[in-house]
Amino acid sequence: MKAARFYGKEDLRIEEVPEPSPGPGQVKLRNAFAGICGSDLHFYFYPESLPFDLDQPHPLTGATLPQILGHEFSGTVVEVGEGVTDVNVGDLGAVYPLAVSCGECGACRKGLPFSCRLMGSLGSNVEGGGLSEFTLVDASKLHVLPDGVDLRMGALVEPMAVGWHAVSRSGVQAGGTALVAGAGPVGIGTWFALKARGVDKVLVSEPSADRRALMAALGARVVDPVNEDLAAAVAALTGGDGVDIAVDAAGAGPAITSALAGLVPGGRLVIAALHEHPTDFQPTQLMMGETEIVGAVGYRPEEFDAVIAAMADGVYGTTGWVQELPLEGIIDALHSLRGGVGGKVLLKVG
Amino acid sequence: MKAARFYGKEDLRIEEVPEPSPGPGQVKLRNAFAGICGSDLHFYFYPESLPFDLDQPHPLTGATLPQILGHEFSGTVVEVGEGVTDVNVGDLGAVYPLAVSCGECGACRKGLPFSCRLMGSLGSNVEGGGLSEFTLVDASKLHVLPDGVDLRMGALVEPMAVGWHAVSRSGVQAGGTALVAGAGPVGIGTWFALKARGVDKVLVSEPSADRRALMAALGARVVDPVNEDLAAAVAALTGGDGVDIAVDAAGAGPAITSALAGLVPGGRLVIAALHEHPTDFQPTQLMMGETEIVGAVGYRPEEFDAVIAAMADGVYGTTGWVQELPLEGIIDALHSLRGGVGGKVLLKVG
Repeated sequence: MKAARFYGKEDLRIEEVPEPSPGPGQVKLRNAFAGICGSDLHFYFYPESLPFDLDQPHPLTGATLPQILGHEFSGTVVEVGEGVTDVNVGDLGAVYPLAVSCGECGACRKGLPFSCRLMGSLGSNVEGGGLSEFTLVDASKLHVLPDGVDLRMGALVEPMAVGWHAVSRSGVQAGGTALVAGAGPVGIGTWFALKARGVDKVLVSEPSADRRALMAALGARVVDPVNEDLAAAVAALTGGDGVDIAVDAAGAGPAITSALAGLVPGGRLVIAALHEHPTDFQPTQLMMGETEIVGAVGYRPEEFDAVIAAMADGVYGTTGWVQELPLEGIIDALHSLRGGVGGKVLLKVG
Repeated sequence: MKAARFYGKEDLRIEEVPEPSPGPGQVKLRNAFAGICGSDLHFYFYPESLPFDLDQPHPLTGATLPQILGHEFSGTVVEVGEGVTDVNVGDLGAVYPLAVSCGECGACRKGLPFSCRLMGSLGSNVEGGGLSEFTLVDASKLHVLPDGVDLRMGALVEPMAVGWHAVSRSGVQAGGTALVAGAGPVGIGTWFALKARGVDKVLVSEPSADRRALMAALGARVVDPVNEDLAAAVAALTGGDGVDIAVDAAGAGPAITSALAGLVPGGRLVIAALHEHPTDFQPTQLMMGETEIVGAVGYRPEEFDAVIAAMADGVYGTTGWVQELPLEGIIDALHSLRGGVGGKVLLKVG
């Protein structure tokens, strides 16, 4: 079968590899679509910045290079292994890619597998990934898609679940107000998740005109934090109080500063983006307003289900921000995404 | 009656003023002890730094200079006003000093009166305060002391409630682990509150040898964050995982940095101290560990009751860190406290 395998920095090859056969508890998936994520850019361009050592077999999974990439993907079940009873050949599904964590560290004991240093995920450091014609997946990790949610949408479940989890961490209630900083895929996912949860008074702050246009086309209120008055826009949205919650999906210091300034007392900022640099904050501001900053990483299986249910309800649209390319377009896509092109690229792999 | 009245920067006069008479719903208290707080230092030395304008009558209370100081105080009821039925002459009580907030702003609507810009408190910007022989107090603001909690302890309820509230905001559970940065009165109150809530694995980090000695005398594990290895001490306390919660009662950037580094994934840092300067943090660290930073200011009436109940249970001790002085010692005490002398000064006013 055809697979996109990562060999090292800027070395990704589309090549023929043997087709896998499902073991007990596994299903074999004919992959349909796989998205490219920021972490795929890290693999390709900056592998030295990854939080694990690519030169060594993964301590839990034994995975080594070359690694099939792709952890945002959907597919059709073509074969089921021994003992699989709740998934059937022909089912369409979205894959929950997190495969293993150590189970012993502080993070695992706190129920936070995405914070485990030995976390292993399909398409990263577990054998197999979405950028191949077929993948083996534990049946328990396949979230079957209901009628009305197609395979294209199915490949968006994972990135949309990142924003959904950020909203879970925010604690916002229906009818609340929100500021989303950044209109990349995490910001877009956050915006849809807010909408799904009845939070309609949402302002999206994004310096890129292209990305603002994508968000505006989805129906979002947008603001340019560089050339417009973000504080005034927040005040206008909230009657002067400040927003109940903010989500940093930008990964930039100024986004944090303006989000903290825009929170109502008791409000919460969720950090859902990686930052290259440390940033300043004034602790007294947090103290006096009893405001909060919390991190959000990954998602939970039940959040996959919630996203899929919201997709079935028609909350999520793909107009304008989702682009389809053949698998062979991956290298060009990696370069375009690094160059700042917005939206999500889905590679058609099946 | 005798009262310590603040006229302006470094101008505090002990003078005779008329004795007040209780109106409906009020009680007249013969004040016993009043503590000096960091905010009293701000009044005396740095009034320009206060978050309200001393030259104008308070918008809600009409209070003007000269202002009787003292918001940490206890006393004995000597007279009750019309309609007061649940407080009796002879009762001993601790005063909940927060008198008013606007009731309309975002903070008030979120149930956070201490974050209201128009908040008014006895001893600050409401007529009357603890540093006088008598004060009028709304009967509903007097927390009557049970047998076994004396007036000296009663004057500590307010400062101890600040630490109690910080622990409430931390969400720590009995059996958890904690780091307290700073061994001033807020740090001491935090340490006692943790003990009261069954959190015994607590490390107190404090650069001052004198303050460390005060804490150690109370039975605390202490560490010098400048000359000892704080990270190693946290690891030793927690089996390498990091603490469940940390409280910044220090108001210094390095305390925040080391507290964040010492948290277990999912852990929470509570900011319970004013900071003069902004400080750095790495948002990625919060994201990857799903850790949290939250502010804590003030307290709630039920937290006064909780502190008083813990005092009745014998949790709180005063050995070594509480010093008594006559009211006339206030100016010297203000200078000593500004100079860094640790512990709490109680002025005997009654």
